[in-house]
Amino acid sequence: MNTFSFQVLKTDGLARRGQLNTPHGTIETPIFMPVGTQASVKSLGPDDLLTAKTQILLGNTYHLMLRPGDKLIHRLGGLHQFMSWPGPILTDSGGFQVFSLAQGAPRGIHKNSGNIKSLVQIDDDGVTFRSYIDGSTHRMTPEDSMRIQMNLGADIIMAFDQCPPGQSNRDDVRKAMQKTTQWLERCINSMNRSESRLFGIIQGGIYEDLRKEHAEEICSTDLFGYAIGGLSVGEKKEDMWPACLAATQHMPSHKPRYLMGVGTPEDLLDGIANGVDMFDCVMPTRNARNGSLFTSTGKVSIKRSEYRSDQNPLDPNCACYACKSFSKAYLRHLFVSDELLFYRLASIHNITFYLSLMAEARIAIEENCFEEFRRIRKMA
Amino acid sequence: MNTFSFQVLKTDGLARRGQLNTPHGTIETPIFMPVGTQASVKSLGPDDLLTAKTQILLGNTYHLMLRPGDKLIHRLGGLHQFMSWPGPILTDSGGFQVFSLAQGAPRGIHKNSGNIKSLVQIDDDGVTFRSYIDGSTHRMTPEDSMRIQMNLGADIIMAFDQCPPGQSNRDDVRKAMQKTTQWLERCINSMNRSESRLFGIIQGGIYEDLRKEHAEEICSTDLFGYAIGGLSVGEKKEDMWPACLAATQHMPSHKPRYLMGVGTPEDLLDGIANGVDMFDCVMPTRNARNGSLFTSTGKVSIKRSEYRSDQNPLDPNCACYACKSFSKAYLRHLFVSDELLFYRLASIHNITFYLSLMAEARIAIEENCFEEFRRIRKMA
Repeated sequence: MNTFSFQVLKTDGLARRGQLNTPHGTIETPIFMPVGTQASVKSLGPDDLLTAKTQILLGNTYHLMLRPGDKLIHRLGGLHQFMSWPGPILTDSGGFQVFSLAQGAPRGIHKNSGNIKSLVQIDDDGVTFRSYIDGSTHRMTPEDSMRIQMNLGADIIMAFDQCPPGQSNRDDVRKAMQKTTQWLERCINSMNRSESRLFGIIQGGIYEDLRKEHAEEICSTDLFGYAIGGLSVGEKKEDMWPACLAATQHMPSHKPRYLMGVGTPEDLLDGIANGVDMFDCVMPTRNARNGSLFTSTGKVSIKRSEYRSDQNPLDPNCACYACKSFSKAYLRHLFVSDELLFYRLASIHNITFYLSLMAEARIAIEENCFEEFRRIRKMA
Repeated sequence: MNTFSFQVLKTDGLARRGQLNTPHGTIETPIFMPVGTQASVKSLGPDDLLTAKTQILLGNTYHLMLRPGDKLIHRLGGLHQFMSWPGPILTDSGGFQVFSLAQGAPRGIHKNSGNIKSLVQIDDDGVTFRSYIDGSTHRMTPEDSMRIQMNLGADIIMAFDQCPPGQSNRDDVRKAMQKTTQWLERCINSMNRSESRLFGIIQGGIYEDLRKEHAEEICSTDLFGYAIGGLSVGEKKEDMWPACLAATQHMPSHKPRYLMGVGTPEDLLDGIANGVDMFDCVMPTRNARNGSLFTSTGKVSIKRSEYRSDQNPLDPNCACYACKSFSKAYLRHLFVSDELLFYRLASIHNITFYLSLMAEARIAIEENCFEEFRRIRKMA
């Protein structure tokens, strides 16, 4: 069995080329993690994910605790075995989605029957919320989040934090930081699974001084890695990178850094340039389902009539199954005909695009030309 | 390039073990043909179909002529290239679906705004119908059906026939037979593609004397193969096999026999026992989408709560990707969570089940024990 470790193999400016070892395998960083919300990356099997060279998956604690339930998954051998995924898994804490999904209307509860307070109650000890599936009431504390993630058997477990909205003022951000710090201590104290490692989460909104302060506070713990939360949550784009950099500059250089919920391909390149090692986002699979496909020459909206008789592959520079086997005309036909195969092919392609971008970034860092690579790829 | 040929290698009672050669490969018979209605077998890629050992696909002329259009597919290199399917393809004539789909309501036309006559008009020369996509009016004659199927580039092309409903009286069935015979001559005269071969279609409803009469009439032509149409269209089950047998007994023994639109796994075994070589049906993929899965010990409705924590594979005797990789608990979770991956895994399994049944039937015929095999499998 591999043990947990992380090494930075090479740097190029702030960009880092690293290796993260887990019991389920080694992850070459920088890396993008496809999101498997309900124990499945939308429309893709583990076979497709492996072909796309996926190295690590993200699982959503909130969804899995409600359905099929973390205790059931534990009884069935853990999330890896349940979904037949042989590689590493990182789970989020569930907290972020308690807040964001609570704003949707669960079945049986009319969307306008109450405000968000009636669906989510935050106190010092944790959060009370209602299920998006059936409206039933649930309680989650830092200890609960750890127990659930350990039941799932994730390699990397995220601390239970409080993520304030992107436009929050300094006071609200500071309160969320304090709660996040207090909760982190409780998370650390309840971790008791030797095959899992905890990441702490740095908050601080768009305020660089608060990011520095919270980075120093969170990173004073001795954890396996650290994440930057509370970005890409509604703040202005130009506020994101200074806040990110204020955090990474005060994170230990010998530990992995994960920027949560980010982002577009350009965001990933910018994140790497700011010293980030790990990313996750639903964008590649969500865009795939909407017919929006990433290519080396820009985004393609496959429904456009110009592709009706286009015999070319979606991206001649892509080696994925969709690009190697089918024309744009066929992909468009599947999309307008609402054929399920479209969602699989489009997701294979977009995931491959993200992962190839990371593979190329790793080479660029190794070859000391990451900035040039970033500039060229952002022009596409 | 292979040429077209058919040989019966072995018989066991009326059951036949044969080989059908086409320019796109050899088909071992008896065989089941998955249905790729819109240039895709619901949720499966060619990779999945090949892994499931699919030997030949059926394409639906009616759907493809309307979207994306047979001329477009022809311009793009034919249906094989369009959908990236390397094996043989058989297309239906479009006629059957003009009648059956016309009873659904196309967009913009209220279902009760007129009777079926307003949507489908049959005359001696052909059929006028309205598109299920946009309500636009289309005309199809025997010559049109041949031209469209040749545009698609099918290896096996079906004659344009008239299929009367299952409860039709002798007079109506006889009229449909006569029209089918007249139209077959026109189909033969308009075939001019050297890489395609035509199958004639035998009608006759549930009337054994009419089946014999029409089989002799249709098989007096020199075609590559012959099909039995107009069964499994609403008649009583006990009327189907005598009518089928009345046809096969008067079909040439050295040519392939195709029973159209049939059926359940039991039906396939009964069809083979009545001398049939080829089958098609949407049942495996349609049932898959409804969570109804075929196994060696009977049908499984995967949504049932008894499978919630069932660690066993769906069918321990099945070698498909779904059974080799996942538990019933996981498949149930995907189904109740409406995850797209379910439809792919369930379709892979059901198609594999049908094709494995055919592979086992071929071995049973070779080993002179088909009747015993049929009896045992029908008990499951």
